[in-house]
Amino acid sequence: MKYKKIYKAVKEKLSKKRWEHTKGVIQSAEELALRYGADVEKAMMAALLHDCCKEEPNEKLREILMAQCDAYSDAKFLDYPSLLHGPAGALYAKLEFGITDEEILEAIRVHTVGKARMSLLDKIVFLADYIEPNRDFPGVEELRKEAKKDIDTAVLMAYDNTIEHLMTTDAPVYEGTMTGRNYMLELIREHKK
Amino acid sequence: MKYKKIYKAVKEKLSKKRWEHTKGVIQSAEELALRYGADVEKAMMAALLHDCCKEEPNEKLREILMAQCDAYSDAKFLDYPSLLHGPAGALYAKLEFGITDEEILEAIRVHTVGKARMSLLDKIVFLADYIEPNRDFPGVEELRKEAKKDIDTAVLMAYDNTIEHLMTTDAPVYEGTMTGRNYMLELIREHKK
Repeated sequence: MKYKKIYKAVKEKLSKKRWEHTKGVIQSAEELALRYGADVEKAMMAALLHDCCKEEPNEKLREILMAQCDAYSDAKFLDYPSLLHGPAGALYAKLEFGITDEEILEAIRVHTVGKARMSLLDKIVFLADYIEPNRDFPGVEELRKEAKKDIDTAVLMAYDNTIEHLMTTDAPVYEGTMTGRNYMLELIREHKK
Repeated sequence: MKYKKIYKAVKEKLSKKRWEHTKGVIQSAEELALRYGADVEKAMMAALLHDCCKEEPNEKLREILMAQCDAYSDAKFLDYPSLLHGPAGALYAKLEFGITDEEILEAIRVHTVGKARMSLLDKIVFLADYIEPNRDFPGVEELRKEAKKDIDTAVLMAYDNTIEHLMTTDAPVYEGTMTGRNYMLELIREHKK
């Protein structure tokens, strides 16, 4: 399916607010892809689809995941409702919109949790989701600035911001998020050597 | 081996500073055990031995762990030098001091990282290590107060403090520490219901 057709379908599928967010993520992903020399079309497609499942009921997301993918039978992961829409969205993008490009699917899959060894496309969608123009939280301007300078440092800042926010609001923090954060820290250290 | 004999041996094994710390942990563990109705002798024994391996070289600790225990062949864990002395200390306590009580050994093993489903003894040693009289860091007085009121909340505060300290100093955070923290959060929520 072509970008325009998917664009229309996703727009219809999402609430007005989520669609505004999605358009923001597309814009930020495009800018980041241009700046860092990633495939702009892939970045925009992944951004368009990143939240395509976010408004489905959690039970449906769990069903999608458990039926399709052994990797998500991890009970710990399934305990985090806010994380389900990433991998469920990737499956949905594949089955409903015929996306077969593994790089795009992976960027959708990991856009909330991150992972160790993120690709450039993974980082772009993860970060675009965080800094798109509609986002407004303490520190977002600093993050936007860093995103223009060094994508790895900006991704680390986004991880840290998320984890600190969860901790100060007494929310559980999925261990995989910490794994992604630790890896990014290690990568930045290696680069500085 | 009896407590007095082990006391003497550990004192000889450790530097002056570490021994002062160990005495502080024994004192705090005793107080916590009395307050929360745990076995005072076990708490003091675990406290006495909790850092018995902390001054060994990391390479030796890694060797001890890998030779004795499959559970620590986890490469991720071995990447954290500051965490090795817990499980290595438990093995050492067993082999060198003849400790066979599994509750004591487990409290030594998990005193730095914590774990899901900590026992009362685990919590006591974990917390005593954090708040013993020689400790001095921002927030320690608040933690000492909470330790007298609710041990679970105090343990959660200790976890959060550790994780936040590591994050603000750009240090990696072992995922197992987050697992322990998440579990404590869940437990406190369950109790409040």
